[in-house]
Amino acid sequence: MNKHLNLVPFVSVDHMMKLVHAVGVENFIMELADYIEADFRRWPYFDKTPRVASHSAEGVIELMPTSDGVLYGFKYVNGHPKNTRDGLQTVTAFGVLCDVATGYPLLLTEMTLLTALRTAATSAMAARALAPSAARIMALIGNGAQAEFQALAFRAMLGIDGLRLYDIDPAASVKVARNLGTLGFDITICDTAEDAVLGAHIVTTATADKQNATILTDNMVGAGIHINAVGGDCPGKTELHADILRRAAIFVEYPPQTRIEGEIQQLP
Amino acid sequence: MNKHLNLVPFVSVDHMMKLVHAVGVENFIMELADYIEADFRRWPYFDKTPRVASHSAEGVIELMPTSDGVLYGFKYVNGHPKNTRDGLQTVTAFGVLCDVATGYPLLLTEMTLLTALRTAATSAMAARALAPSAARIMALIGNGAQAEFQALAFRAMLGIDGLRLYDIDPAASVKVARNLGTLGFDITICDTAEDAVLGAHIVTTATADKQNATILTDNMVGAGIHINAVGGDCPGKTELHADILRRAAIFVEYPPQTRIEGEIQQLP
Repeated sequence: MNKHLNLVPFVSVDHMMKLVHAVGVENFIMELADYIEADFRRWPYFDKTPRVASHSAEGVIELMPTSDGVLYGFKYVNGHPKNTRDGLQTVTAFGVLCDVATGYPLLLTEMTLLTALRTAATSAMAARALAPSAARIMALIGNGAQAEFQALAFRAMLGIDGLRLYDIDPAASVKVARNLGTLGFDITICDTAEDAVLGAHIVTTATADKQNATILTDNMVGAGIHINAVGGDCPGKTELHADILRRAAIFVEYPPQTRIEGEIQQLP
Repeated sequence: MNKHLNLVPFVSVDHMMKLVHAVGVENFIMELADYIEADFRRWPYFDKTPRVASHSAEGVIELMPTSDGVLYGFKYVNGHPKNTRDGLQTVTAFGVLCDVATGYPLLLTEMTLLTALRTAATSAMAARALAPSAARIMALIGNGAQAEFQALAFRAMLGIDGLRLYDIDPAASVKVARNLGTLGFDITICDTAEDAVLGAHIVTTATADKQNATILTDNMVGAGIHINAVGGDCPGKTELHADILRRAAIFVEYPPQTRIEGEIQQLP
């Protein structure tokens, strides 16, 4: 229909928020995780390529194309940690879905919200397969917007209801605690990352600074802990000490990508 | 201003057509060529990468990002030769311009028309520097929409007013001749490519079939002819016999790109 009209529907942030609220955030994440898992099960059908990044002093702009032979899509996404100082978002994104048979665009959509939901859904989908099934308490280190989505995804999909928060900016933890506290989580704000991981079955790191940071050192992480390292998403940006990687079983989505921008850039 | 409003202006095909008609197609192409030449003169400042192509049986979808450190832009463009059978365009395109400092989009625009204009302006800009200055007659082989833009660009920038048209589909040549005839060109429709190149000072090839085609063989091209080979834009898609390349001075925009998708993919 669209190709005859030559009109491309546009889903704005407002539309997406209405859709997510109508479905319910946790339901939305669970349904999204099922689609993501189904796509992982047909992984070989996708035309994959490492994302195409353009780096500057202030941040990064990336294009992420893929295709399954029937549909083609790409996402535009930026990452500019300093944006928050000016009241702008660190990450904004949009994407286009296209018909492989004609090359015509089918849909233009905001993906700022979708990126946040997809990241959380993928983390929880992986944890559902990999984390201890008795896990109930999660440390959340890095308390930006993504931390809230992570908490909702891990409760919806794994039953996590205890959160131990830490951020270098205490106000960020207070904001997350306020937003999630009304939703029934049992929340502890911690003074250090070391404190946050105490007693946690799952440790999620979702920090934004574009540098090799050591959010977790080897001695902080006991055996059997599931680490959900979200923030390592640029060359030179990592969150875990390499010693943790050396004794962990490591699962990544797409090695050629993760070698460039993920935690395993630290490994030979 | 846009970053405070969080609104991204959109330039539709209708808007672009109105703009081009208001400026005049030939004026538009000349002004565009000056911008393109100015950018070539600061070529080292651009962050360049070969375009990211997703190929299918029917065509190709490509993303083309670049940045000069202040502005970032990318173009989405498809190439589907079979589309014309269904009343669709072979090539459609759109693009986004973004602020490197914040990663925020500044402008979303159609680029179907802009691609056609940019291709013609770049061809004529290169010919202005490379073709014999006395050139007045151009062979146009491949008489799709791009042929008309090429004719207008070469008249505006080089004074070309004689056209020798050839297409495997005679109706395509008739259509170009009808559209350009009223604009004062001296037009000859030819039965073969060999006929079209007779007496031409410049030979433009702009064909769409996605295959190694030999539009020009070595014996068809005399000394001193400027060949403007536009159509070789996919792996496996070329227009010139390799022998022509072996005796020509060759100028390309970006070798890492042209090695993959241009005429020089035929060279070792």
